[in-house]
Amino acid sequence: MVNIAVLGYGTVGSGVVEVIRTNGEIINKKAGQEIHVKYVLDLREFEGDPVQEILVHDYNIILEDPEIEVVVEVMGGVEPAYTFTKKALLAGKSVCTSNKELVAKHGAELLAIARQKQRNYLFEASVGGGIPIIRPLNSSLTADDITEITGILNGTTNYILTEMADKGAAFEDVLKDAQSKGYAERNPEADVEGYDACRKIAILTSLVVGEQVDYEDVHTEGITKLTEADFKYAKALGASIKLLGTSRKVDGTFYSMVAPVMIGQEHPLISVNGVFNGIFIHGNVLDDVMFYGRGAGKLPTASAVVSDVVDAVKHLNENILTIWEQKKYALGTYEKLPGRFFVRMAQAADPESQKQEIGKVFGEVRYVEADGVEGETAFVTGTVTEGDFSGRIAGFGQVRSVIRVDF
Amino acid sequence: MVNIAVLGYGTVGSGVVEVIRTNGEIINKKAGQEIHVKYVLDLREFEGDPVQEILVHDYNIILEDPEIEVVVEVMGGVEPAYTFTKKALLAGKSVCTSNKELVAKHGAELLAIARQKQRNYLFEASVGGGIPIIRPLNSSLTADDITEITGILNGTTNYILTEMADKGAAFEDVLKDAQSKGYAERNPEADVEGYDACRKIAILTSLVVGEQVDYEDVHTEGITKLTEADFKYAKALGASIKLLGTSRKVDGTFYSMVAPVMIGQEHPLISVNGVFNGIFIHGNVLDDVMFYGRGAGKLPTASAVVSDVVDAVKHLNENILTIWEQKKYALGTYEKLPGRFFVRMAQAADPESQKQEIGKVFGEVRYVEADGVEGETAFVTGTVTEGDFSGRIAGFGQVRSVIRVDF
Repeated sequence: MVNIAVLGYGTVGSGVVEVIRTNGEIINKKAGQEIHVKYVLDLREFEGDPVQEILVHDYNIILEDPEIEVVVEVMGGVEPAYTFTKKALLAGKSVCTSNKELVAKHGAELLAIARQKQRNYLFEASVGGGIPIIRPLNSSLTADDITEITGILNGTTNYILTEMADKGAAFEDVLKDAQSKGYAERNPEADVEGYDACRKIAILTSLVVGEQVDYEDVHTEGITKLTEADFKYAKALGASIKLLGTSRKVDGTFYSMVAPVMIGQEHPLISVNGVFNGIFIHGNVLDDVMFYGRGAGKLPTASAVVSDVVDAVKHLNENILTIWEQKKYALGTYEKLPGRFFVRMAQAADPESQKQEIGKVFGEVRYVEADGVEGETAFVTGTVTEGDFSGRIAGFGQVRSVIRVDF
Repeated sequence: MVNIAVLGYGTVGSGVVEVIRTNGEIINKKAGQEIHVKYVLDLREFEGDPVQEILVHDYNIILEDPEIEVVVEVMGGVEPAYTFTKKALLAGKSVCTSNKELVAKHGAELLAIARQKQRNYLFEASVGGGIPIIRPLNSSLTADDITEITGILNGTTNYILTEMADKGAAFEDVLKDAQSKGYAERNPEADVEGYDACRKIAILTSLVVGEQVDYEDVHTEGITKLTEADFKYAKALGASIKLLGTSRKVDGTFYSMVAPVMIGQEHPLISVNGVFNGIFIHGNVLDDVMFYGRGAGKLPTASAVVSDVVDAVKHLNENILTIWEQKKYALGTYEKLPGRFFVRMAQAADPESQKQEIGKVFGEVRYVEADGVEGETAFVTGTVTEGDFSGRIAGFGQVRSVIRVDF
């Protein structure tokens, strides 16, 4: 029997306890021995919940109990999760987590401690919820030079974008609806501004390059500026607007970005709708692969955490090699990243001379018209770098919208 | 440095050598040491190919060389692959393979020998080509009671079905085209009759249930009887026809089948087109996940084989637990599997009395009409078991087509 402790009895923590209770027989068989939840740490009380019997308020009880071999950290946030995790690893306990903030910030250091102590720091649930992606990246996609990893990494924003596309609704209205359904938080900033997706693409890119990608270095744009008109143009182009976290290798260097992107019908992520997540990877010999599933939610996320617990139990005194060094990776300068852009601007009094001006600045572009949008000039550019585009567009006065295009 | 030997220098074998040569630096880093191809076994000569220098014709050279720690078996077929694999494992060498026939037939036994010798028998490439599915099933989806695994497991047939749907072409014409493009073999029976998909769903189901699922027990139907008219009806129903290998748990027992199925726009596999494969899994806590990628091809398949080699090198003297016992699993009797059916029959002289007859036998059904198809009565039944359906349809004379429906 292996004793574990769960830090935090919120959504994911209570899910972990529930999954172990519901699927205990299967889980124990896969782990090769019984997994027993000995403690749950939370500052709150849960009167009437059976968890009350194993509830503790003092982390030291867990830390000092030599019977605890695996700690599940599902508190979220950097502190005190960071301190608790470090202490657990140093005390010879493996740690499994869903905490993307902590993994993005201190993952490399915590992995190094785990390796040094021959224990494990596992974080399958930190990206893509229930979708197996961390373990496949680490132990399956090992024969490839991975040149792109792009994901729909945030279910809240994907739900909002899907609703905006399907119903022609405004961002604010859909956000309110998502909040009332529990798909978006009362303070939705981390989701809608792309911060959550940013941490996740930083984690994925770190694993791809094997070094520390700081999420602060990832150029990040959210979805709050998207309007009904943007979706009308997307429809006219046969495209969908998705919030993508993406890292691409250009001339040997990775460039990372989080931003809304118009993708076409041929893109592997095109059919990832609603609260679902999808992660697309391109390798030089593997070609394209895609992983799809529920990127959030109590039980899917808990399923991923518990799969890590099983792995930790199968490797109690042995480190699973994860290549993610603390050395900082120098992402390519965002301004140098090449791409194509969809642009909407107010139609000038003389549309023909406006188009001539656009042609002078951007060369050949594809003009687009959308049903129900009047008084605008909209077009898709050829390939230019981000920096080049910013410079060229600055000369135009009435730009209403810029969305990157990948089709 | 770890020395390996590759058995068979065909498409996959030459791909393995190429992948190791191309991505050697990355692969060695992931493996923690250098992987060196010491021998390639093939009965043929390859004059002018650098492989000639390491080519051997006698398997005993490999078997008796204590330096060889990992054997890559990419010969295909049951013999001599079975004998070679068994001897390698008994000699303390791990084996990595893409050989679905052998894995489906003797996987459980070979895994048992590997476990007993503390070596590994790995077969990621046997299902889904480059798509990571075996390792995720074995080490990621460990917290779930998996209740369904359904895949588009054969790229050749998926290419043919996609072309038939897109171009309204006949099976024979598309098959010829696929053969000329190298997507289908000269003798296409294993693909188009569903035998290949059958072995793959048997392997996947064995891993889900942890016991031996004999592929001979899986009810298998191919795609050779599908006609242009079937695709016209599918279009009218907003559905696609896909060759699915599927195992579903009903009342605690798994039922397996390979057959063409009409799936709707909401099905996660709906956008898996052309030569791509996709595998959909439903778990009781994970909900839905899907894995997508190239199910065949020299380099994608070789990528999966080499990822197994990396894993074997990381676990040289240690068995990776794979739960697949030799005990035979009793699949549910196919006749008891519930489902819905699309049926086409010649229109009777008196269509109304024909519909009355259909109503008497099947209860309420959904009638379908398709553009460009005349003189037929076509409908979709409610849910009945396979056995029940066979009994009821037997009373009708002029049945032209029966396709299962999942939407």
